[in-house]
Amino acid sequence: MADFKDTESAETTGTPLRLLKGTEDSLPEDQILRQRIIETIRSVFELYGFSPVDTPILSYFDILASKYAGGDEILKETYRLRDQGDRELGLRYDLTVPFARLVGMYQGSRIRLPFKRYEIGKVFRDGPIKKGRLREFIQCDADIVGTSNPLAEAELISLADRVFRQLGLEVRCEINNRRLLAGIIEAAGFAPELAGTVILSVDKLQKIGREGVEKEIRDKLDPSVPVERGPHLADIFGTERLAQWRITLDASLERLFGWLLAEGEPKERLARLRAEVGTAQAQRGLNELERCLAVLEPLQLAAPVEFTPSLARGLEIYTGTVYEFFLRDTTVFASSLAAGGRYDRIIGQFLHPDQPERAEDYPALGLSFGVAPIQEVLRLRVPQASPQHSIADVIVVPLGAEVAAVQIAEQLRLRGIRTDLDLSGRKLRKALEYVNAVGIPYAAIVGENEVAKGCLTLRNMRSGRQEMLNADAAAEVIRGNLWSGAPVESSRNRHGA
Amino acid sequence: MADFKDTESAETTGTPLRLLKGTEDSLPEDQILRQRIIETIRSVFELYGFSPVDTPILSYFDILASKYAGGDEILKETYRLRDQGDRELGLRYDLTVPFARLVGMYQGSRIRLPFKRYEIGKVFRDGPIKKGRLREFIQCDADIVGTSNPLAEAELISLADRVFRQLGLEVRCEINNRRLLAGIIEAAGFAPELAGTVILSVDKLQKIGREGVEKEIRDKLDPSVPVERGPHLADIFGTERLAQWRITLDASLERLFGWLLAEGEPKERLARLRAEVGTAQAQRGLNELERCLAVLEPLQLAAPVEFTPSLARGLEIYTGTVYEFFLRDTTVFASSLAAGGRYDRIIGQFLHPDQPERAEDYPALGLSFGVAPIQEVLRLRVPQASPQHSIADVIVVPLGAEVAAVQIAEQLRLRGIRTDLDLSGRKLRKALEYVNAVGIPYAAIVGENEVAKGCLTLRNMRSGRQEMLNADAAAEVIRGNLWSGAPVESSRNRHGA
Repeated sequence: MADFKDTESAETTGTPLRLLKGTEDSLPEDQILRQRIIETIRSVFELYGFSPVDTPILSYFDILASKYAGGDEILKETYRLRDQGDRELGLRYDLTVPFARLVGMYQGSRIRLPFKRYEIGKVFRDGPIKKGRLREFIQCDADIVGTSNPLAEAELISLADRVFRQLGLEVRCEINNRRLLAGIIEAAGFAPELAGTVILSVDKLQKIGREGVEKEIRDKLDPSVPVERGPHLADIFGTERLAQWRITLDASLERLFGWLLAEGEPKERLARLRAEVGTAQAQRGLNELERCLAVLEPLQLAAPVEFTPSLARGLEIYTGTVYEFFLRDTTVFASSLAAGGRYDRIIGQFLHPDQPERAEDYPALGLSFGVAPIQEVLRLRVPQASPQHSIADVIVVPLGAEVAAVQIAEQLRLRGIRTDLDLSGRKLRKALEYVNAVGIPYAAIVGENEVAKGCLTLRNMRSGRQEMLNADAAAEVIRGNLWSGAPVESSRNRHGA
Repeated sequence: MADFKDTESAETTGTPLRLLKGTEDSLPEDQILRQRIIETIRSVFELYGFSPVDTPILSYFDILASKYAGGDEILKETYRLRDQGDRELGLRYDLTVPFARLVGMYQGSRIRLPFKRYEIGKVFRDGPIKKGRLREFIQCDADIVGTSNPLAEAELISLADRVFRQLGLEVRCEINNRRLLAGIIEAAGFAPELAGTVILSVDKLQKIGREGVEKEIRDKLDPSVPVERGPHLADIFGTERLAQWRITLDASLERLFGWLLAEGEPKERLARLRAEVGTAQAQRGLNELERCLAVLEPLQLAAPVEFTPSLARGLEIYTGTVYEFFLRDTTVFASSLAAGGRYDRIIGQFLHPDQPERAEDYPALGLSFGVAPIQEVLRLRVPQASPQHSIADVIVVPLGAEVAAVQIAEQLRLRGIRTDLDLSGRKLRKALEYVNAVGIPYAAIVGENEVAKGCLTLRNMRSGRQEMLNADAAAEVIRGNLWSGAPVESSRNRHGA
């Protein structure tokens, strides 16, 4: 999809036509697939009892800027504008702030807790463009607020599993618990002040390996190693404390990786952690995780659920169980396709920033699908030879008999066939060239002959085979060769063998 | 939906939570219906061979500001902003400029003409808020570029008819042709310079009647009557020419209304116009209109198609046939629910502002649905007593047996039933209170007894009746009483008798 960014049309005489970098045009060849992905996600959200909401993109800026964990980074990237009434506005940068706002505004009146909602919509980030980062993109989020029950996590993991099955994608799920990870780090002997920074490094374990993580943690504790952003730990805690911490660092890292890299079945590993990591945090995390896994086991998901004790999911917003879905074959696509977790403090902090005792009043958790990565993965599996520029299953091509052709089109539509109608008045050969170019699989030719017999001549554009049929028979043939509403996968193969 | 604008939550301790006026939160009770309307429109768009596209909301401002008929009015209402790179950007105010831009950028490469696309998405207007005017709202547009064939208009009218049938709404269609109307005005004896202003007044005929229109036209030609906006005609043409024009005004108005208010069958009225209005414009308009009507007749639409020679559809963008759909019972709802027409010059002017000879290179026409008015009409027909706060068909309520309950939920979902799961741990009575409050029609209670028998107790929340069933039987009962995927209408009656 990157190939048509900043395209310019030389043909125009006016303002040069171009796209803002980081925004995309999705033409039918892309949008048909994207739409199917979104509809699959939407229908499964609803199957799990999540109700749709829609919130405005435009918001008062101060609401977007409200205190919110992880806010500063994001706030910098929030589009700001003033309207004609000189109000200070912003474009939403995620769907979580609007979710929290809904809870604050309508809870007790139009919203009852627990509240399960999904929202699918555009969000905006005024940031630098890197590979895979867009300024305007779609988020697909399902969230629950008002329950601490770890079965809710199991529900969301089962939901994601069903989405990927319906999309025909083989995925695996990594799961962990932030409390467990924090407890492991604590038990390994790191000072509490270091928990956050160690978590952020450990989160990269799968990407940069044990050596990489160890080096990163050592560097952070070394006053002579400059940091890329923000203050150095030495500036915060003083070189003396860093020196103290370094004394026990080797032993802590040894213990830490002993736990993180333990091998064996998930159950054994969890049992070992329960026995060896005595901290209260870790025990609570283990309880949550084990309850979730116990529910998932009998459901026999298609996705293997892999306990990954280093997984933290970067952002500080998560407080409990976290999960992330990847394509099983990571050589094909390595980034995550869906992810989420429990964030028990965000909504409480957002609604009551001055009352820390209310931070956990709104326990919540969510799951977010990445439409763009899923689209990329599905596209990788399809031969690029014949992009589908039209949604139509068939196009009626009138040879003179236009009024009859409209009625044939109507008959096919009555039978549920997506039917285009060629109104160009082109000769048959030219018309069929167009049909081929846009990738419509069938043409229904209607000339005098066909009108006389109340029929149409159905042409399979791939094989070139054609036969005279009535509307019923034609609909049958077209339907037989088309996407059946099942996996998206097969729909992409409709021109296939 | 107006009742929750600018709601403030007193409960929050932080930034007061509020909505920008002219934007809306759509909670499940509204969004479930809106989603069904949009899905109905989307599926019918596709049934007629319109392919989906998605274009960015964010755009370079200069593209939105490009020369475009009717541009000035709209331009004033375009949200402007600067990003961190100091680029001047805007939020799209319609889906037509993006459509024209797509044609300009991809035609010949990724787009072949004729190009039929639909887009459903948000647009933004930085204007004053009046009743029914929003600053952020959804447009649902289907357009065709690259055909002058009047059958295309028939296709769009047939499409709209099908949407309203599927929504269970009885509508009527008003149809006219701008060329015909311009030709009538010319033949009535108005100076060519007055055509535009007379059309704008005549367009109000149904609303303000003959007297109102006559008064408005007389006032416009009277230098002593001040105008609300813009320059007076006297300032443009001079009082002398106005005086000249006034000499023949009575006769012109007489002729004009003789044609506009003629009674009889559409065919007779069209034949009379063909005989009496000799201008080339009028004859061309008649040809277009009659070809369109000839195709519609055998299709036997549910909506009566009423020839309304005064209909102009305000905006100057339309060049040919125009159409507008209203609820048949205008005492219930008078505003239009869908409308569109042919605009042969917009895209050419947008792409080649300096080459007037290319203005008609891209003949185009479209149809736009008003989601908000359709939603309002459908809502009017539903008793407000029991709003549906949840999409779920059933909620599984565990009495202790949570793990078994998850599996029951899974079994119901396997059978396509939208299933929520109560994770609150509440006692049965409290749980059922919640189910009632959110309007889920069934509860599936799972306790020890049910687990032992591999069953669930299904409770009809309306009647209070309950029985122990297996998942298959429960799914059957739930499905029997639910929306069947057909008209939206019946879905709203699922609690009904």
